Amino acid sequence: MNTPRVKEILSWYGSDNPGTLTNLARLLNHGKLAGTGRLVILPVDQGFEHGPARSFAVNPPGYDPRYHFELAMEAGCNAYAAPLGFIEAAARDFAGEVPLILKINNHDVLCDEKDPMPALTSGVRDALRLGCAAIGFTIYPGSSAWAKMYGQLREASEMAKQNGLAVVVWSYPRGSALSKQGETAMDVCGYAAHIAAELGAHIIKVKLPTDHLEQEAARKVYEKEKVAISTLADRVKHVVQCTFNGRRIVIFSGGPTNNDDAVYQEVTAIRQGGGFGSIIGRNSFQRKKDQALRFLGKIISIYGN
Amino acid sequence: MNTPRVKEILSWYGSDNPGTLTNLARLLNHGKLAGTGRLVILPVDQGFEHGPARSFAVNPPGYDPRYHFELAMEAGCNAYAAPLGFIEAAARDFAGEVPLILKINNHDVLCDEKDPMPALTSGVRDALRLGCAAIGFTIYPGSSAWAKMYGQLREASEMAKQNGLAVVVWSYPRGSALSKQGETAMDVCGYAAHIAAELGAHIIKVKLPTDHLEQEAARKVYEKEKVAISTLADRVKHVVQCTFNGRRIVIFSGGPTNNDDAVYQEVTAIRQGGGFGSIIGRNSFQRKKDQALRFLGKIISIYGN
Amino acid sequence: MNTPRVKEILSWYGSDNPGTLTNLARLLNHGKLAGTGRLVILPVDQGFEHGPARSFAVNPPGYDPRYHFELAMEAGCNAYAAPLGFIEAAARDFAGEVPLILKINNHDVLCDEKDPMPALTSGVRDALRLGCAAIGFTIYPGSSAWAKMYGQLREASEMAKQNGLAVVVWSYPRGSALSKQGETAMDVCGYAAHIAAELGAHIIKVKLPTDHLEQEAARKVYEKEKVAISTLADRVKHVVQCTFNGRRIVIFSGGPTNNDDAVYQEVTAIRQGGGFGSIIGRNSFQRKKDQALRFLGKIISIYGN
Amino acid sequence: MNTPRVKEILSWYGSDNPGTLTNLARLLNHGKLAGTGRLVILPVDQGFEHGPARSFAVNPPGYDPRYHFELAMEAGCNAYAAPLGFIEAAARDFAGEVPLILKINNHDVLCDEKDPMPALTSGVRDALRLGCAAIGFTIYPGSSAWAKMYGQLREASEMAKQNGLAVVVWSYPRGSALSKQGETAMDVCGYAAHIAAELGAHIIKVKLPTDHLEQEAARKVYEKEKVAISTLADRVKHVVQCTFNGRRIVIFSGGPTNNDDAVYQEVTAIRQGGGFGSIIGRNSFQRKKDQALRFLGKIISIYGN
Amino acid sequence: MNTPRVKEILSWYGSDNPGTLTNLARLLNHGKLAGTGRLVILPVDQGFEHGPARSFAVNPPGYDPRYHFELAMEAGCNAYAAPLGFIEAAARDFAGEVPLILKINNHDVLCDEKDPMPALTSGVRDALRLGCAAIGFTIYPGSSAWAKMYGQLREASEMAKQNGLAVVVWSYPRGSALSKQGETAMDVCGYAAHIAAELGAHIIKVKLPTDHLEQEAARKVYEKEKVAISTLADRVKHVVQCTFNGRRIVIFSGGPTNNDDAVYQEVTAIRQGGGFGSIIGRNSFQRKKDQALRFLGKIISIYGN
Repeated sequence: MNTPRVKEILSWYGSDNPGTLTNLARLLNHGKLAGTGRLVILPVDQGFEHGPARSFAVNPPGYDPRYHFELAMEAGCNAYAAPLGFIEAAARDFAGEVPLILKINNHDVLCDEKDPMPALTSGVRDALRLGCAAIGFTIYPGSSAWAKMYGQLREASEMAKQNGLAVVVWSYPRGSALSKQGETAMDVCGYAAHIAAELGAHIIKVKLPTDHLEQEAARKVYEKEKVAISTLADRVKHVVQCTFNGRRIVIFSGGPTNNDDAVYQEVTAIRQGGGFGSIIGRNSFQRKKDQALRFLGKIISIYGN
Repeated sequence: MNTPRVKEILSWYGSDNPGTLTNLARLLNHGKLAGTGRLVILPVDQGFEHGPARSFAVNPPGYDPRYHFELAMEAGCNAYAAPLGFIEAAARDFAGEVPLILKINNHDVLCDEKDPMPALTSGVRDALRLGCAAIGFTIYPGSSAWAKMYGQLREASEMAKQNGLAVVVWSYPRGSALSKQGETAMDVCGYAAHIAAELGAHIIKVKLPTDHLEQEAARKVYEKEKVAISTLADRVKHVVQCTFNGRRIVIFSGGPTNNDDAVYQEVTAIRQGGGFGSIIGRNSFQRKKDQALRFLGKIISIYGN
Repeated sequence: MNTPRVKEILSWYGSDNPGTLTNLARLLNHGKLAGTGRLVILPVDQGFEHGPARSFAVNPPGYDPRYHFELAMEAGCNAYAAPLGFIEAAARDFAGEVPLILKINNHDVLCDEKDPMPALTSGVRDALRLGCAAIGFTIYPGSSAWAKMYGQLREASEMAKQNGLAVVVWSYPRGSALSKQGETAMDVCGYAAHIAAELGAHIIKVKLPTDHLEQEAARKVYEKEKVAISTLADRVKHVVQCTFNGRRIVIFSGGPTNNDDAVYQEVTAIRQGGGFGSIIGRNSFQRKKDQALRFLGKIISIYGN
Repeated sequence: MNTPRVKEILSWYGSDNPGTLTNLARLLNHGKLAGTGRLVILPVDQGFEHGPARSFAVNPPGYDPRYHFELAMEAGCNAYAAPLGFIEAAARDFAGEVPLILKINNHDVLCDEKDPMPALTSGVRDALRLGCAAIGFTIYPGSSAWAKMYGQLREASEMAKQNGLAVVVWSYPRGSALSKQGETAMDVCGYAAHIAAELGAHIIKVKLPTDHLEQEAARKVYEKEKVAISTLADRVKHVVQCTFNGRRIVIFSGGPTNNDDAVYQEVTAIRQGGGFGSIIGRNSFQRKKDQALRFLGKIISIYGN
Repeated sequence: MNTPRVKEILSWYGSDNPGTLTNLARLLNHGKLAGTGRLVILPVDQGFEHGPARSFAVNPPGYDPRYHFELAMEAGCNAYAAPLGFIEAAARDFAGEVPLILKINNHDVLCDEKDPMPALTSGVRDALRLGCAAIGFTIYPGSSAWAKMYGQLREASEMAKQNGLAVVVWSYPRGSALSKQGETAMDVCGYAAHIAAELGAHIIKVKLPTDHLEQEAARKVYEKEKVAISTLADRVKHVVQCTFNGRRIVIFSGGPTNNDDAVYQEVTAIRQGGGFGSIIGRNSFQRKKDQALRFLGKIISIYGN
């Protein structure tokens, strides 16, 4: 049965039908963090996004689609997210064993445009036939192709919600309008999170922001209003505020492999700032499985305490 | 994770997509019998089928749609099955807490034809928006309206399977072509179970058969081939055989209130005969909740041993 | 703003989208009973159902479609319900002035079958283009055409709910399976109300029941369980119980012209029994307007106290 | 590659697209009779049509859907035909191993009308998703429901042909308009075969006719024109003539268990009369598998010589 | 019947329906390599892609669409792949004689953009009416039009899979983002193969990679992780790894006419590296038929040993 915290979270989604709430509950009630309102999700779209060798050569079992289902299950993650092929290749074998998020658009780096625009690679009907709890969709606010992406999200999202699925949006600022530093700037990250929420996302994934402020008009306000952004926990708290004052689930991505302790500190900061969890791909599957399980176990225990 | 038994059961449904397998797994992995391959389901369509007072006056909390969700959850049933209104009235409150089966056709007794034909009362789109794991559909083999019912089931079933839902068929022989005794005759019950399986049902619900043989042509075969039908366990075993030699889930209904010990003996016989479980409505919700919980607890413990 | 009572009522409709809740709120928040959770609705489909002269000759202004909009507005009713033509003929003139319920099926008495089956006379798209808050639909439980009606309601209802409309069901037992007395029998009336609720109606309209019990199987239960049905208030209370223990709006129709005091007593009984209001057609528009306003004013004041 | 005989047969279907020809070729090029233009097909719809015990009790492995795939494959049949459930239950296990014919309508004998009308139990979309080469459809010429059946066949057939499937029609005269003897009368059988051909069937299945003549108007012509119908070979030859003078594939059913030698003689007569083969259900699966393989082997060898 | 190897291969496609498995089995079970799990496919789209004279002048019988069907059949290839016109022109003549792959998009060089984008030239409905086992689709990863192509593939693929067809993807890196050498670079080729697999392809066709590494970020990983790519067999093995660790069928194209022995060595390397076969167009049909048959015979014998 749903914990009070899960019931509270579900109560924020009053315009969604019980089907979508049921799928949100499936995500919130699976794995070691079941019922806590916190989530750790394993995403494996790096094969598509960065290329297979860059993703899996360091830990070759990751070339096998079954590996990631098993990793997500054994680690006690809330869900596993991947593009069509990786899901199709093992969904029958693990039917009902871990909630799935079908990543329905993807981007590769063989043609890495300054203003990226992902391709639609699967859809809501695929998510239904494969038993997924949610679709996942990436937008690149700041890309000149932004409006087309938002429009595609709108269409997929409408259909997903009618059919009782949840919608997870990866909101990654990127494009010729932003400096490299700006992609993780506090103002930009908060803005990107808010856009995803306004587009109707149920779960929002953003990168952890720095204390850089990219846009001049924003910087003035942050300074005038003395918005606290000096610590990572402050910045997480502000992102949470930007996503409907905490009434949308917002989770944070881990980025490339890192010093483990640094990751644990980030997770602690996310927790302190009121973030809902992490989505950790490369840092998980780019190490031996036993190490990955220890690593994810530690992160989960930070959230679970 | 799926137990070996659940994996074995899912392996029988090779023509279904992973979405449908996921929903079958949701049914098999919920409640106190999770993972055993056995199911106890709470159905509450008697308000529609027999009228509200005949259904709920004896235990008035049952007039409230929330009561049955709670009963199914507290008893540890695998699922709760009901018509549209009862599901709609509480699906948001209990989203994700118990697998739901939307009964999409129903029959009332205000116009009780000799050859009954239920009305379509909801559909696959409702099941998706309400977060149900399956649709439920009643057929009355033996009714002169049989072909229309089978045709409606076919259409709903095709759509359910495309969208990753499971299909539960109530196969209740009834109609002017059958004697009253014939409705639960061994040959008729086995035939009804087989028809449901041939129509593509994933889960089949029939009444417990007696040792009566209704059809002359069938009687000759049962006698010549010495099909064992003398004990209830024998008869359950034969029904299981009739549903693809055990490769479809077949469960048994309880009928009207009864001596409890008689019910426990029936359940023991279902278990011995290789049946997959029970669907118990009136016997559950037509007594005080604490008694119902004890009663269902006992049944579940018989299956679970 | 919604009163606590309106908020409570809306909370019962958790599977409906905010669009449908908004239209329910429009009905609950209009007229003199706004915010009380009680409704008095003016329906004028008698022209179609009984013929124009039988309906309007006694008060000829009623031939004019604008008359009924004005009557509903001046009396302070919550809504006005009528078939397509009557709505179309004045909807522009009174746009936004009174919530409308488009009666999308109708039956005439030029061919008055023993087992009546209404015709579909308009639809959800009409309701949307005409600015209606709800569709209205009549079912005749007990007619041999019952299953066809329920199936048509199902389809209209699915579409109405998707588009944010409310669904009002007139549930009038009638047909060769019932005696004349049975049409308003306690058991039959409660059953008919329950069926409408199970079919997903938001608002249910039934006739006031007598203490007659029509069906033998039901009678036994009423007597054994000592269901209180001796006073009209008792019987209203039981109908309310039959519609999800009070968690659906159920209102009562007035029937043919009557002694006014008798009507007021009926209304008092509805109020005492926990009914949500009245739908009063012939008794309103078959008298001069000033008398009608006095009459409706009295009824509304009984509910409003 | 296609033999000259297969090429000749395909040349008769000039209005069908290459997809349908490809599926006809799949049927003609599989099993021990591959390339001969002759077919022996295993049909197993008796579970649905007569009941499971009457069908399988004599040889219980037949309760298992996998058994019939294996029997058809091991015997070297051209194809296996069955209703939805039996196909779904094993299609993945034997994908590509034997051409399948999905029987999309079926009739049971729990309500055995004088004028039978089968139910639609699956459809063209099912046939495509299950990898079938053809749909199978039963018509009962002589039943008062004949026009509805022909109309349903027309719709399914149109869709099947658009999608490159073949259409196999079981044409079984039956109904209140015919005497029992008339069901297999020479004139009736030839007429039924012709009707199926006119309805666009690619493969037609009829019962072996007797020399009885049922219809007076027909009898006069048979006698006046001295149509040869005295031997079984004559009668087969006449059926072949009735199906477009041999330019449609017509095969014959075996009926209930029989003296084996009688069956072999029938098959010899079919061969002599220019029939294209046999469809043999009960006689195959209602004996032990080794006996069934010997029996089918003998039949196939008669056709193959 | 399917060999154990074919059964193993089919087991990787657990999210596909039995229809798609049946068509995969048709490809795997045809020609001289039937049952080995290896494939040699004849593709003839060069007339469209490069122009007819460039394609067929060297061996003029190749202008005739029937020639290629005959070549594929006589050589014992598993399948023949071509655009709409070439298939339409001979599909009736050779119905059922060789599995067909309908190439549903094509690119010509009359307008040869730096960033190529093929045109949709036929579709799934064509594939069904023509009796094809699969659709074929070319993507050009690295072209600035990549996202549009992937999106078109997604739509065609969804429809193909629903209808039981297989999906073959030609994944040819090309476009302004890549150097000429980069088109066949190891990292790029592995990436392109992985993308096709993630897009849901059942069979993936790529060019044989060189040991060049095109992308700096990839090069670092290949060197750090010491991915073996020095021999052609190593590189094939790595491509196989990049396509779900060997759980997708990946075949290799031959490119322009070459020294025959060099081709045999390439084929030997594909076999050693665990590749599933070759798709050989120009090298086959751009020589006299007897030479082509010898050439293909030799290649097939290398795979078949």
